[in-house]
Amino acid sequence: MDHLKEKTLSTENIYDGKIINLRVEEVELPNGKTSKRELIKHPGAVAVIAVTSDQKVLMVQQYRKALEKTIVEIPAGKLEPGEDPMETAKRELAEETGYECENLRKIISFYTSPGFADELVHLYVAEGLEKTGDQHADEDEFLDVLEVSLDEMQEMVENQTIHDAKTAYAFLYLKSQT
Amino acid sequence: MDHLKEKTLSTENIYDGKIINLRVEEVELPNGKTSKRELIKHPGAVAVIAVTSDQKVLMVQQYRKALEKTIVEIPAGKLEPGEDPMETAKRELAEETGYECENLRKIISFYTSPGFADELVHLYVAEGLEKTGDQHADEDEFLDVLEVSLDEMQEMVENQTIHDAKTAYAFLYLKSQT
Repeated sequence: MDHLKEKTLSTENIYDGKIINLRVEEVELPNGKTSKRELIKHPGAVAVIAVTSDQKVLMVQQYRKALEKTIVEIPAGKLEPGEDPMETAKRELAEETGYECENLRKIISFYTSPGFADELVHLYVAEGLEKTGDQHADEDEFLDVLEVSLDEMQEMVENQTIHDAKTAYAFLYLKSQT
Repeated sequence: MDHLKEKTLSTENIYDGKIINLRVEEVELPNGKTSKRELIKHPGAVAVIAVTSDQKVLMVQQYRKALEKTIVEIPAGKLEPGEDPMETAKRELAEETGYECENLRKIISFYTSPGFADELVHLYVAEGLEKTGDQHADEDEFLDVLEVSLDEMQEMVENQTIHDAKTAYAFLYLKSQT
């Protein structure tokens, strides 16, 4: 597949942020012409589908500044440097919902926006859930926890209350298991 | 849900690009403290699940500079200003694969990375496919078309040849229809 490869001719670092970096690259295309690529570097993230013993899915409601609105998602968070994604998943689930789990099973990893970003999301199913404490999210993170049945999730997909890629995937995955 | 809202205190435009813009905002959190948000503005995109009359899914193989590798995805592309997403979907399908379709049906719209980007992907199923021409992608776009059975897609998910959010969703969607 080397015939599709783009060679880097030059790289300009535009912004190094707290979470994302932006760089612009001049590339040589397979036909020898040049083009510009705007690229976001992201540390990667995890997301967790957690179903309680009474068959409710744990969801969080959170204001997303990029969208200027509050949306509903499954618990998720970005990887800390050197942290194993499974540990991140356990930590984020506990922080965002107050639930701990006996077991985590990896479902899939996917790139969210390969056209411009390298963010890779690792998706887990949490099994054997137990409420062990209260939500204690990061200091700049404010969220409400919801416990939602599959029927309610279906409605939320239909009325576009849920339209987040990882959460939509989680919904289809759970449906495929029933 | 207003109690979760973050108020904009100031906005700094860091970069206005060909496809994405980056701005950094200082926000007031629900508890009155302040934080910084790094936000990517994106025009939005479409993706198309297209199954041929002999039950093959049309896929494209493309080098993604953000990942520094070639990955397999369903046909997709970004919205042009003022363009109806359904028109974009028809156009991208024809440009990237050489197939036209009788009918497009919307499945879902989802945000790909709500933590930092406003990219919204509109996902369609294409029905009544006919090969009417050759691939004729954008001048800075180089790709190979693949026709893949559901069994082959399953294998590609398992060996991580497919790990793109919209394509993974499309795969589960198709599985749920069989």
